[in-house]
Amino acid sequence: MLIRVINPNTTRSMTEKIGISAQRVAAPGTRIVATNPDSGPVSIESHFDEAISAVGVADEVRKGEREGTDAYVIACFGDPGLLAARELTRAPVLGIAEAAFHLATMISTRFSIVTTLSRTGIIAEHLLQSYGFAHHCRRVRAAEIPVLDLEDDGACALNRIVDECRRAKDEDNIGAIVLGCGGMADLADEIRDAVGLPIVEGVTAAVKLAETLASLKLGTSKFGDLAFPPPKRFTGRFEHLSS
Amino acid sequence: MLIRVINPNTTRSMTEKIGISAQRVAAPGTRIVATNPDSGPVSIESHFDEAISAVGVADEVRKGEREGTDAYVIACFGDPGLLAARELTRAPVLGIAEAAFHLATMISTRFSIVTTLSRTGIIAEHLLQSYGFAHHCRRVRAAEIPVLDLEDDGACALNRIVDECRRAKDEDNIGAIVLGCGGMADLADEIRDAVGLPIVEGVTAAVKLAETLASLKLGTSKFGDLAFPPPKRFTGRFEHLSS
Amino acid sequence: MLIRVINPNTTRSMTEKIGISAQRVAAPGTRIVATNPDSGPVSIESHFDEAISAVGVADEVRKGEREGTDAYVIACFGDPGLLAARELTRAPVLGIAEAAFHLATMISTRFSIVTTLSRTGIIAEHLLQSYGFAHHCRRVRAAEIPVLDLEDDGACALNRIVDECRRAKDEDNIGAIVLGCGGMADLADEIRDAVGLPIVEGVTAAVKLAETLASLKLGTSKFGDLAFPPPKRFTGRFEHLSS
Amino acid sequence: MLIRVINPNTTRSMTEKIGISAQRVAAPGTRIVATNPDSGPVSIESHFDEAISAVGVADEVRKGEREGTDAYVIACFGDPGLLAARELTRAPVLGIAEAAFHLATMISTRFSIVTTLSRTGIIAEHLLQSYGFAHHCRRVRAAEIPVLDLEDDGACALNRIVDECRRAKDEDNIGAIVLGCGGMADLADEIRDAVGLPIVEGVTAAVKLAETLASLKLGTSKFGDLAFPPPKRFTGRFEHLSS
Amino acid sequence: MLIRVINPNTTRSMTEKIGISAQRVAAPGTRIVATNPDSGPVSIESHFDEAISAVGVADEVRKGEREGTDAYVIACFGDPGLLAARELTRAPVLGIAEAAFHLATMISTRFSIVTTLSRTGIIAEHLLQSYGFAHHCRRVRAAEIPVLDLEDDGACALNRIVDECRRAKDEDNIGAIVLGCGGMADLADEIRDAVGLPIVEGVTAAVKLAETLASLKLGTSKFGDLAFPPPKRFTGRFEHLSS
Amino acid sequence: MLIRVINPNTTRSMTEKIGISAQRVAAPGTRIVATNPDSGPVSIESHFDEAISAVGVADEVRKGEREGTDAYVIACFGDPGLLAARELTRAPVLGIAEAAFHLATMISTRFSIVTTLSRTGIIAEHLLQSYGFAHHCRRVRAAEIPVLDLEDDGACALNRIVDECRRAKDEDNIGAIVLGCGGMADLADEIRDAVGLPIVEGVTAAVKLAETLASLKLGTSKFGDLAFPPPKRFTGRFEHLSS
Repeated sequence: MLIRVINPNTTRSMTEKIGISAQRVAAPGTRIVATNPDSGPVSIESHFDEAISAVGVADEVRKGEREGTDAYVIACFGDPGLLAARELTRAPVLGIAEAAFHLATMISTRFSIVTTLSRTGIIAEHLLQSYGFAHHCRRVRAAEIPVLDLEDDGACALNRIVDECRRAKDEDNIGAIVLGCGGMADLADEIRDAVGLPIVEGVTAAVKLAETLASLKLGTSKFGDLAFPPPKRFTGRFEHLSS
Repeated sequence: MLIRVINPNTTRSMTEKIGISAQRVAAPGTRIVATNPDSGPVSIESHFDEAISAVGVADEVRKGEREGTDAYVIACFGDPGLLAARELTRAPVLGIAEAAFHLATMISTRFSIVTTLSRTGIIAEHLLQSYGFAHHCRRVRAAEIPVLDLEDDGACALNRIVDECRRAKDEDNIGAIVLGCGGMADLADEIRDAVGLPIVEGVTAAVKLAETLASLKLGTSKFGDLAFPPPKRFTGRFEHLSS
Repeated sequence: MLIRVINPNTTRSMTEKIGISAQRVAAPGTRIVATNPDSGPVSIESHFDEAISAVGVADEVRKGEREGTDAYVIACFGDPGLLAARELTRAPVLGIAEAAFHLATMISTRFSIVTTLSRTGIIAEHLLQSYGFAHHCRRVRAAEIPVLDLEDDGACALNRIVDECRRAKDEDNIGAIVLGCGGMADLADEIRDAVGLPIVEGVTAAVKLAETLASLKLGTSKFGDLAFPPPKRFTGRFEHLSS
Repeated sequence: MLIRVINPNTTRSMTEKIGISAQRVAAPGTRIVATNPDSGPVSIESHFDEAISAVGVADEVRKGEREGTDAYVIACFGDPGLLAARELTRAPVLGIAEAAFHLATMISTRFSIVTTLSRTGIIAEHLLQSYGFAHHCRRVRAAEIPVLDLEDDGACALNRIVDECRRAKDEDNIGAIVLGCGGMADLADEIRDAVGLPIVEGVTAAVKLAETLASLKLGTSKFGDLAFPPPKRFTGRFEHLSS
Repeated sequence: MLIRVINPNTTRSMTEKIGISAQRVAAPGTRIVATNPDSGPVSIESHFDEAISAVGVADEVRKGEREGTDAYVIACFGDPGLLAARELTRAPVLGIAEAAFHLATMISTRFSIVTTLSRTGIIAEHLLQSYGFAHHCRRVRAAEIPVLDLEDDGACALNRIVDECRRAKDEDNIGAIVLGCGGMADLADEIRDAVGLPIVEGVTAAVKLAETLASLKLGTSKFGDLAFPPPKRFTGRFEHLSS
Repeated sequence: MLIRVINPNTTRSMTEKIGISAQRVAAPGTRIVATNPDSGPVSIESHFDEAISAVGVADEVRKGEREGTDAYVIACFGDPGLLAARELTRAPVLGIAEAAFHLATMISTRFSIVTTLSRTGIIAEHLLQSYGFAHHCRRVRAAEIPVLDLEDDGACALNRIVDECRRAKDEDNIGAIVLGCGGMADLADEIRDAVGLPIVEGVTAAVKLAETLASLKLGTSKFGDLAFPPPKRFTGRFEHLSS
C-alpha cells in the first residue's frame, strides 16, 4: 500500500525527516512517499502561509492520484487544505493535528499541546473547536521556536520543547502531550523519555490511521459534501485545474 | 475612503454585479473598487474551489495594499482566506458570511440561511460554529442552484430562491433570512418584497461594516496572531510572495 | 437620520459625555439625541439596577417612536432591556456590549473585556454566552472602579483602566480589548494610545452599527418573537403602557 | 416557614389559582403568601411584558423582606427578574422555569416544553441555554393559547394543551413534559392523566425547591455578584428604591 | 415516606455518618434507611472503583424495591450507577453530585468544587458536562485527602478541606462551594462557618430533592429510555438478576 | 501482537462472530482473542445491562493482563467500563462506539448512527457529547431490533437495518453511517453494498485503532486519572479484586 505523506511547506530537509519518521512506523507492506510541493512557503507560521500551502497540498494529491495512492497524510499541524484534499480523492486523507488529537483522547482524558510559536496557537484552537476536542485539551502552549530552527539546531529546540512539556506535565493536570509541529516528528521519543509522559506525534499517528482506514476500505465518502468538486473552468495560473 | 470588494471567483460579470450592489449602499465618500483575481475558479462550490480562491484573495489584498486601501470585503459566502487576508493588512477585512450573520442577530433572535447548493451547506455550518452563531441559525437551506446560474438566468434562480425562503418563513420559526451567496447581492430587495421577511445580504452588510470599522479607526489588530506574517521565502510559482 | 442614544442610568453628565462620543463618530447626516430616563438608578452596578433601568429604556424607546427615530442605542454594557426595546419599534436597536463584541471579533481572534466592578463581570459572561461570543473572549477583567467615579475623577479612573488593560495585553494572549462600561466612551483613544492595542468601545461601535442597519433598511424584524407586543392592559403606575 | 409566591402579572385570579396550587403541595409548616404586584401587565407574553414585570417582582421581594419571608417563588415561566430578586434578599429565590427544568432532568433524560404562545418560545430557549439544560430539551412547543385564556376557558385550553402534549409524547422521544406557563399550575394532574407521561409543573416544583433550600439553610449567596446591590440613589418614580 | 440512602462503598462507618446527616435534614415523616452493599470497594477513588460499586447500587435498589421505598439517594460524588438505578424503579433516584450542582446554581451564579483527590476530579468534570453545569463551575479543586482519611482523622481532613475552600473563595470569583465527597456530609456546617461562604453538601441536598420529587408524585419516568430494563437472562454470579 | 476483544455480554455466538470480524481485519502479526465474561447479561439493551456488564469487562481485562495482552477492545456500542478498563492496564483500550465515531469523522463531515433499539439511543447521545462528536452526528436512528435477533435471524434484521440506513442516506444529509451495535459486525459489507454509503463498523475500527496505538507504543497513560487504581480492599463477592 502506498501512502503519500505531504509536507505542505517546501523545505526538503523537513520532508525527508518526516518521511523517515513515517516509514519507521509504517506496516511492512506500506510504502511511504514523502513529498512537498515545488511552490509554497518554506515554513508555515501564519494563516497566510497556511492558505498558500493549501494549493500545494491539492497539487500533491492530484499528483498522487495519477500514481495510484492509497492514502494521504498532510504533515503540517494546521491541517491545511484538509477538506479540499478529501474532495480530490476516494482515498482517505489525514491531517496530523487531527490524527494526534484523536489518538490522545484514546490514552488520556485530558491533554495539552506544545507547539512552536504562540502566534500559531490560534490555529490549534480553531481545529480543536471544529473537530470537537476543545474540552479534552487543557492548554495550548508554545516553545517559541521558529519552525526552521527545528531543522538547524535540533538540540537547542529539543531543550526548549522538553522544558515546555515539563511545565505542561507539572501544571496542566494532563495525561498526555500532543506535539504541535510536523517538524518535531523525529523528536518524539527523546521528549517522551525526558518528560515521562505519553507524547502523541502527528505524523506517525496519521500514517497509522491512514493504514487503518485503507485496510478497512474506508475511503473519503464520495456521497455528500466531500464528493469530487463540480467540474469547472479555472483561469490564469490555475488553468491546469480546469476539468 | 476606498473599499476593495474582492470577488474570490474569476467571473467578471459577477464581480460587476457585486460592485454595483456594494456601491449602491456605500456612503457618499466611499469609493468601491470591485475586483477579482486573474487566476482561480469561475465559481466556488466546493472546499477545493475555496482553497484555490484563497490565493487570489491574498493577491488582491496585496494589490490593494499598494493602492492605499482602507478596508476589504471578501465577497464569497465561505469567507475564503479571511484570516490570511487579515494578516496582510492593517485595514479591516470583512467576509460576507460573517457580516450577514452579525447583522442578522441584531434584528432577529433566530435566522435561517438560504444558499445555492446543499453540498456547500457544510461550509456555512462550519463558519456558524467557528464564529459562535450556531445557536442563532435554525437551518441551512439550499435552493439547489449552481452559482453561475445566478448569472445566466436570474429569473429562474430568483424563483427558486424565493420558494426556498418562503419555506424557511413557514417552517423555521425565524425572524430573518441570510442569503448564502455573493451572487445573490442584486436580488435581496426583490426577495424581501416577495417573502415579507427581512433579508440580510452579505455584500451590502460587509461594505457597511467595513465603513464602520474604518470610521472608528479599528483596523485588523497587528498585536497577536493577526500580525503581519513572519517574513520568509516562498518557492516556485509563489516566489513573488517572498519577503 | 436620527439615532436615539439612551443612557439607561439617570446621571445626566454621563448622558452628555456619551452623546458627545456618539456624535463625534456619527455620519454627517446623522443626528444624535442623547437621553436618559427621568426615573431609575444613577448608575448600573447590579442585576437589580439593570432590571429597573430596563423600564426607563422602554420609556425612552416609546418617546423615540413618537419623534420618528431611525435607530436606537442602549448605552449600558449590560444591554438592559434590549429585546424588550426591539419589540417596541421597527427601527434597529443596538446594545453597546453586543456592538463591541461584534466589532472585536472582526479585528482580532481573541479579546478580553475590562469592566468597572468585578461583581458585574457575570453580566458580561451571561451576554457572551447568550450572543455566542464566549470562546472569543479570553477573560473578563475589572478595574474595580464604581461607575460614577468615571464621572468624578477621570484621571484616577483612567489610570486604573489603563493598568488593567496592560495586564490584559501582557497576560491574556489577545488582539483587542473591549471596554466594559458606557461611561468609558470618552477614554477609548487615550487608553488605546497608552496600551498599544485596539480598543473597542461600545457606544461608538453601536452608533455606527445603528447607521449600518438603518442604511440597509434592516430594521428589527416584526415577524416572529420581536413583533410588537400583544396589546394588553397594564395596571397601576404602568397603566400608561396599556394598548 | 413563609414562602412568598409572586405572580409577576397583575391578574388576581391567576394569582389565586397559583396560590392554591402552591399551598396544596406545601409542607405542613409552610405558609404560602400568593401575591402579585399592583403595577404591571395583566399577562406576560413578550420580552417587553417581562421587562416591566421584573419591577413588580422586585417590589414584591422588598415587601416580602419587611414581612420576614423565608423563600420566594417567581411564578412566570420566563423567570423575570430572577437575578435581581436574588440580590435583594438572603432568602432563596426560585423561578418556575428553572425549577421545572431541574426536576425534569431528575426523572428523565430528555424532555419537551409545552408553552402558551410560540412567540414566547424564545424565552424558554434562552433560559435553557443560560441554565445549561439545552441538550436535555428536545423541543419547545406551543399550544397557541393566549395566557389569559387559561383563566377564561379552562376546558378549551386544557384540550389544546393535552393535544400538544400528546404530539410531544408521540414525536419527541422524551420521558417527561414541562408545562411552560404559571397559569397551567392547576391543570398538571389532568394533563398527566390524559397524556400518560410525567408532567413537571413549575409552581409546585419551585415551592418544594424553596422549602428544600430553606430547610438546608441555603440562602442566596451574599458573597460575590448576588450580594445586596450597592446602595445608591434612584430618581423619579423609582426614588423609593434609593438606599 | 421511606428514603433509601445508598452509600456505594462498603465502609459501614461512612454509611452511618451519611445516614445521620440524611436523617438530620429529613422531614418529620421521612424515614431514612442508610445502607451499603455487602460487596464492593471500601472507598471509591477511581473509575474502576466506581464501575464495581454500580453493581452494589443496583443491588440496593432491588432490595429497596422489595421493601417499598419511596425514593433513593446514591451517596457517592460520582453518582455511580445513577441511570441504571433509575431504570429499576418508579421511585425517584438522586445522585449527590447531581443534587449539589442543582442547588448550587440556585443560590449562586458560579461555584467551585472541593473534592478529595485530584485524580477523581475528572469524574466531576464529566458529570458537569453531561448534566449541563460546566459553565456554572469555575474550578474543580482537590484537598488531596484519601477518602477513608475522612473516617480516621476528621480534624486533619477538615483543616485541609477548609484551607482549600478558602483558596477557592479567594481566587475563584464564586458565590458557593460544592463539597465533592459523601464522606464530608458531617463537615458541611463547620466548613461553612470557617469559610464564610454557602457550602452545598450533596447527601443533604439529595435527601431534600428526593422528598421534593416524591411529594410531587414525580417518579422516574417509565416512558422512554428509563423504563424497566427489558427482561432477560443473566449468567454466572449475576444469574439472580435474570428476569 | 495480542488483542483481547471483549464482548461485554455473555452470548458466546456473538462473541465468536465478533472474533471472526476482528480477525478478518487484523494485521498478519496480530492474534485476536475473542472472549466474554462468564457472568453478565446475555445482551445489553439498557443502562442497567451496561452497568452490570462493566464488571465483566474489568474481569476480562484483569485476565488479559495475566496473559500478556497488547491491546483491548470493548465490543459493545455503549463502551461499558471503558475508563475503568483503562485504569487496569498499560495497554491501549478501545471502545467500539468511540472507534467508529473517530473513523467516521475522518471520511465524512457528518454521519448518522443506526442502532438496534430506540431506548438505547440515549447511550449513543451521551457518548457523542462526552467524546465531543455531537455536532458531527446528524441523527441517532434505531432499526428496532432486539440485540439477540441479530443472532437468530440475520436476514430479517439485515433488511431492517438496510431500510433504516437508506432512510438515513435519503433524509440526513450525511456522508457515512455508523453501525450502533457490536452484533452488526458481520453485516457491514452487505449493508454498504446495499446502501451505497461508507459504513463504519466499530469492532473492526477498534481492532485497527488498537493496533495503531500499540505499534506507536502509545499505551493508556499511567500519569493522572487513568493510573492504576489506588490499592484497596474489596468486600463480599468482589473480594478477589482487593489489592
